[in-house]
Amino acid sequence: MPVNLPEIIPASLTPIQGIRLGWAESNIKKPNRKDLLVIEICDGSAVSGVFTQNRFCAAPVTLCKKHLDAVKKSDIAGTNVSGIKALVINTGNANAGTGEQGMLDALTTCQNLAEIMSIPAESILPFSTGVILEHLPMDKLLTGLPLAVANLTTDNWADAASAIMTTDIAPKAYATNVKIGDHRVNITGISKGAGMIHPNMATMLGYVATDANITKSLLDSMTKKIADLSFNCISVDGDTSTNDSFIVIATGKSDATAITTPNDEGYQEVFNALLETSQYLAKAIVRDGEGATKFITVTVKGALTLDEAKTIGFSIGKSPLVKTAMFASDPNLGRVLAAIGYASRECESLADLDTNQLELYFGSLLVAEKGGRAASYKEDEGQAIMNEAEIDITVQLHRGNEESTIWTCDFSYDYVKINAEYRT
Amino acid sequence: MPVNLPEIIPASLTPIQGIRLGWAESNIKKPNRKDLLVIEICDGSAVSGVFTQNRFCAAPVTLCKKHLDAVKKSDIAGTNVSGIKALVINTGNANAGTGEQGMLDALTTCQNLAEIMSIPAESILPFSTGVILEHLPMDKLLTGLPLAVANLTTDNWADAASAIMTTDIAPKAYATNVKIGDHRVNITGISKGAGMIHPNMATMLGYVATDANITKSLLDSMTKKIADLSFNCISVDGDTSTNDSFIVIATGKSDATAITTPNDEGYQEVFNALLETSQYLAKAIVRDGEGATKFITVTVKGALTLDEAKTIGFSIGKSPLVKTAMFASDPNLGRVLAAIGYASRECESLADLDTNQLELYFGSLLVAEKGGRAASYKEDEGQAIMNEAEIDITVQLHRGNEESTIWTCDFSYDYVKINAEYRT
Repeated sequence: MPVNLPEIIPASLTPIQGIRLGWAESNIKKPNRKDLLVIEICDGSAVSGVFTQNRFCAAPVTLCKKHLDAVKKSDIAGTNVSGIKALVINTGNANAGTGEQGMLDALTTCQNLAEIMSIPAESILPFSTGVILEHLPMDKLLTGLPLAVANLTTDNWADAASAIMTTDIAPKAYATNVKIGDHRVNITGISKGAGMIHPNMATMLGYVATDANITKSLLDSMTKKIADLSFNCISVDGDTSTNDSFIVIATGKSDATAITTPNDEGYQEVFNALLETSQYLAKAIVRDGEGATKFITVTVKGALTLDEAKTIGFSIGKSPLVKTAMFASDPNLGRVLAAIGYASRECESLADLDTNQLELYFGSLLVAEKGGRAASYKEDEGQAIMNEAEIDITVQLHRGNEESTIWTCDFSYDYVKINAEYRT
Repeated sequence: MPVNLPEIIPASLTPIQGIRLGWAESNIKKPNRKDLLVIEICDGSAVSGVFTQNRFCAAPVTLCKKHLDAVKKSDIAGTNVSGIKALVINTGNANAGTGEQGMLDALTTCQNLAEIMSIPAESILPFSTGVILEHLPMDKLLTGLPLAVANLTTDNWADAASAIMTTDIAPKAYATNVKIGDHRVNITGISKGAGMIHPNMATMLGYVATDANITKSLLDSMTKKIADLSFNCISVDGDTSTNDSFIVIATGKSDATAITTPNDEGYQEVFNALLETSQYLAKAIVRDGEGATKFITVTVKGALTLDEAKTIGFSIGKSPLVKTAMFASDPNLGRVLAAIGYASRECESLADLDTNQLELYFGSLLVAEKGGRAASYKEDEGQAIMNEAEIDITVQLHRGNEESTIWTCDFSYDYVKINAEYRT
């Protein structure tokens, strides 16, 4: 079961004006399962995205980038629309490592949906997630498209969250809102992912929509910042997938005034609400991490650079030895210290890290200092913290002012079981 | 059980003139177990070492480096002796993360052994391996020292290999020999390690001795090259330990002529024999990797730089998703391609890797090309290769002439079990 991930309450997922969602069961991998989702986006919306940095990126990712680029160029100067009118997402098959046929299949998907919805094919962003290296079963997918479109409604976010799941145990969704002046702005999002999770990015999809009115160029920079503080701060197994995508949509349908620069009224509130939503959705992926029994927050403070802080955070958060110890509720300080010590492999400036200066905390308990176990440390107190399902690890380096937080889970028998049996 | 690791035959481990070994059972972690080893080195030997790059390196590692430095400075100009007269190795406790007390304990160990053997304390290199963050039980260790010294003999290599084991299932040793002119030169070595294994370096110890006559400065450069081609090419779990050390000893007792430059007669033969021994001992660690059921060789060819080749090799060799698929004998090409694709995270020049140009082979079977599954690939042929205990993966990048080979193992339930229960 996911670690402290509350069940989603469909009624709490506020519809976003200008967005409709429709799903279908198209038997892509298994029958009787929602596996196709269409998201319709109203005219005038701004749409921004960040994508996997995997060189083997999937055909739909390549096409998404091309379509986002194409509509940018065709924009009328001075307007802020991005020209994207629909997203189409299938689960069960990643359409990755599929060569030229994969690109043709992604294009055909867009063209078919374009015909059904009477919109240009270039205004559609396609996404796929699931098994790599198998060709999309196009007959099934194309049969599902008109069903998904016929299904479009505004209050479908909970079903949409289910329709994009792969090895996820639980659907992931979140909604919040803020006020700009007298006007309410809503934010609702969904995500999926459980394995092959690591920054830049993971086997994850994330879609967040708001009715705020934000210019396309500003939304682009906000989306990048938000991804770096949410989906790029999680690790389940250190693997980076071929298909990861994070999309933010601003429909502009609320009555609040437009936001065109970071100094405008409401910018910070909307940024924070988008970040809160994205962090919730990112952490939900870790809570539902394959085989996870613990949710672990690693905060590194007092670093010289942000890179130092992130590298040490992930060095701890990726270590199979740390993660198996966490699974065993074993306060194995040594493995955490070793992971701090070898972080210099991936961050040159850490080569002069003075391990005698740093402090290590489990929760608020000082466990190590001066290059060894803290004199005040009592194993039973460390054990009590390890027995919890939520574990906070903090490293204070005392060499600068930068800090970073990452989220990870433990490494259990079930991780091996899930991934050894995935294709069978 | 280790993967295809032949049992060692004590009689095949040729003694090295000038080297004697003695062990003791000193109850450091468990009773009735060889856990202390002394290696006596004759005067005039050259001794070289490479050590962990972990910033939390153990007290004995710090002291080893200091003693190697000190004797270097005290050398008489023109002579080639390194002045190291003994090694002392304990298992069961790593003396790492032990602060000032740890350094005192390592010093005390050297001083006690110095008194027993009537040699200077600075001529002794100390090594520890085992649990981190616990103080050495000095009373037990010091009681064992005279017993180990009393035990010194030349034909004790098999027992020595057992005396340095921690989570190892099997002892690891290898011997070979070469001819320089009419004279035979012998090489014999031992190693230990099974978990926390990754380059630069792993929870491993390796000791190789030869009776060849090699100058200290030449042996230093040979040792570094050999480490890069052997112990720095293995990964079990991606963790780098606090204690790793690799030591090469040349006693000069054979009748073969001295080797002072790479152009001298016998240099290449001795280098190759030392490399063969070190690669065998390094691969033995992977074959005995915690929970290993498969031995996996990853070769990356056609890279622009050696760094590209190594990074892709380890990206595949470290991926928990690849390693769990190997455990399941699942020819999951997609996970291997994904791991190639995200290697650019750790090697900038791979950002322009053209995935359509590369070929992936399992054994001699072409499995992927042109960005997807090879047209000729048949799953049952891939499956047949995956069913073997020894699996070769080859990536041909077609972008340069550099290549690299790394060795790794699969990721099984037993890895989790061993590491979740290590301290209990």
